[in-house]
Amino acid sequence: MIKSLLLVSLMAVSPGVFAQTAVQNPPRQIAPITISPEVHADGTVTFRVPATNATKVTVGGDWAGGSKEMTKGENGIWSVTMGPLPPEIYSYSLNIDGVAMIDPNNVWVKPMRAPRTSVFEIPGIREYDFQKVAHGTVRSHQYESTTLNRLRSLTVYTPPGYDQNSKEKYPVLYLLHGSGDNDATWISVGRANNILDNLMSDGKARKMIVVMTDGHAIIGPQGTNRMANVSAYEKDLFTDVMPFVEHNYRTKNESKSRAIVGLSMGGGQSLNIGLNHTETFAWVGGMSASIYDPETNLAKALNDSKKTNKQLKLLWFQCGKDDRLVANASELSAILDNHQIKHAFKITEGNHSWPVWRKYLVEFVPLIFQD
Amino acid sequence: MIKSLLLVSLMAVSPGVFAQTAVQNPPRQIAPITISPEVHADGTVTFRVPATNATKVTVGGDWAGGSKEMTKGENGIWSVTMGPLPPEIYSYSLNIDGVAMIDPNNVWVKPMRAPRTSVFEIPGIREYDFQKVAHGTVRSHQYESTTLNRLRSLTVYTPPGYDQNSKEKYPVLYLLHGSGDNDATWISVGRANNILDNLMSDGKARKMIVVMTDGHAIIGPQGTNRMANVSAYEKDLFTDVMPFVEHNYRTKNESKSRAIVGLSMGGGQSLNIGLNHTETFAWVGGMSASIYDPETNLAKALNDSKKTNKQLKLLWFQCGKDDRLVANASELSAILDNHQIKHAFKITEGNHSWPVWRKYLVEFVPLIFQD
Repeated sequence: MIKSLLLVSLMAVSPGVFAQTAVQNPPRQIAPITISPEVHADGTVTFRVPATNATKVTVGGDWAGGSKEMTKGENGIWSVTMGPLPPEIYSYSLNIDGVAMIDPNNVWVKPMRAPRTSVFEIPGIREYDFQKVAHGTVRSHQYESTTLNRLRSLTVYTPPGYDQNSKEKYPVLYLLHGSGDNDATWISVGRANNILDNLMSDGKARKMIVVMTDGHAIIGPQGTNRMANVSAYEKDLFTDVMPFVEHNYRTKNESKSRAIVGLSMGGGQSLNIGLNHTETFAWVGGMSASIYDPETNLAKALNDSKKTNKQLKLLWFQCGKDDRLVANASELSAILDNHQIKHAFKITEGNHSWPVWRKYLVEFVPLIFQD
Repeated sequence: MIKSLLLVSLMAVSPGVFAQTAVQNPPRQIAPITISPEVHADGTVTFRVPATNATKVTVGGDWAGGSKEMTKGENGIWSVTMGPLPPEIYSYSLNIDGVAMIDPNNVWVKPMRAPRTSVFEIPGIREYDFQKVAHGTVRSHQYESTTLNRLRSLTVYTPPGYDQNSKEKYPVLYLLHGSGDNDATWISVGRANNILDNLMSDGKARKMIVVMTDGHAIIGPQGTNRMANVSAYEKDLFTDVMPFVEHNYRTKNESKSRAIVGLSMGGGQSLNIGLNHTETFAWVGGMSASIYDPETNLAKALNDSKKTNKQLKLLWFQCGKDDRLVANASELSAILDNHQIKHAFKITEGNHSWPVWRKYLVEFVPLIFQD
């Protein structure tokens, strides 16, 4: 079908920059952008940002040694070279005269509620790499939450072969993010898809679906009440997310085929929801979890330890020794001991940061759905 | 399976801010973030950004009237209220003392090579809304480009029912982005998924798969040579992307079931690749296209107009009357007329911006795969 030709008008070509036509030889050049960060072969990294009028520019990230001052060079471009850094996926922010911001020349932005962080990688950690193995697919959805009366985002990882094996059903891991992040962060920064691909390829993990939800159920000022947010999030999870997932994906729908784990705020959510619903989740974890008054909020699970131990196949949580939340994790472990609730708790190296959480995922995923 | 309990150490709680424990009542409060942008019920919008040390802060976006100066208020928070604005999805940047940046309090960042732009919406354009209709799924992949010898991103929209109708095959629209953007932008800012969902629900468009690729084949300084980039992109498309898509998705693989259209740089790519491969793409479009020396680059199609007309089912392109590229579009139309190549060309309202491209998609999609 060819539509009729319609030539409404031929605009006059005005002088100056907008008169440039693309019908020329050589073609119109686009301005090169500042390259930042530039990761060098030796593991050093150069950051650059144009800021002609700035008086102080720094770059800070989740590497050892803290922020670095940048120095002003030609054309108002500030720069600093640091490292060499060991292999890792690094998060960092620029700070220009007191304003924390992403690196505006780096395409890799950390998905956040308030995005101030960029990401780069020093390659070399095999578990996080896109390797020559079968790959799963990351899918994004929006759904209308009847609980929260608004549109929400949902990210779902399906394992290699999901589309081809159209009869097979899979267990589901619910994987929760921290308070600064959103449902996209476990993929973009956490590399959950590569980690799952690689563990499955190595035969270390069962094939599973991973569901990443938006943990900020209550938005605005009321969102600062963490337990109110856990309650609203739990209702959205049970009423909206799980029915959506179990309707649209080929899921196994018994408790031994459902796991829940999260980091920081999401760890508080996963431990609270998981332990209060052992009939729904047999595998429960927490990474550097924000734990809220367990004697009160987990009373049901604590007081019926026999049932809790029977229904749970795994209760697992870890926290870094340099994490401000480590004392809470230890306290939770002691409370669980007092109530004779079986659990696997470990204090690890590290602080409250993504390098720790990626490692925890590599450790947690092989434990679940194993019987 | 319960792992053995391992308590490495119990950290002492140090005084000060890091001594805050989450095991308390009321739970630890998280700092409220600055709300920006705030869209009011009357269509006015308030932007806010904390920048204590700044001397000049402005906000500029794709609304009529250009940039607005912001004024400094309490706590070093700059703000301005503008509008009311008509319903639209708006892109905007803050500029703090000469540094263009995203709004660090707005979760909605435009996917770009060099991210400096945030997005918000004044609701009211039905075609762009998430409506109560059946919804497709957006899937993201990485693939190893053998052409370009690096890992690349790919975004794929599958229509409603794709997973359920496991035998059905679908035509494929290749939808290309502009030079500032990437393969995620047609979803995040272009709302291609909602537009497709809504057109299909209204019976205005055939069910189709939409493939959004990364148009920056050549990166770094050499990427400014647009025709070299088109050639490298074309090779990646034919050698890597299309085989990946046709292997992993249930596609119809004849030319009448393939369309290609893009905007700006992507329009130059879609017109060049489409017209040079009418044996592969029967439906070819360009939106505000960057057109590169058509007499040379499209010589094959122009000189065999009989074959070109026979193989093409649609050659469609549009450009806004206030777009600097409109003269090139008119010139291409005149060249096609000279060679008696059938085409549908229209100069529309608007300039070189996303509000125009979303409308073009709403117009283009119903035309393709219709016979």
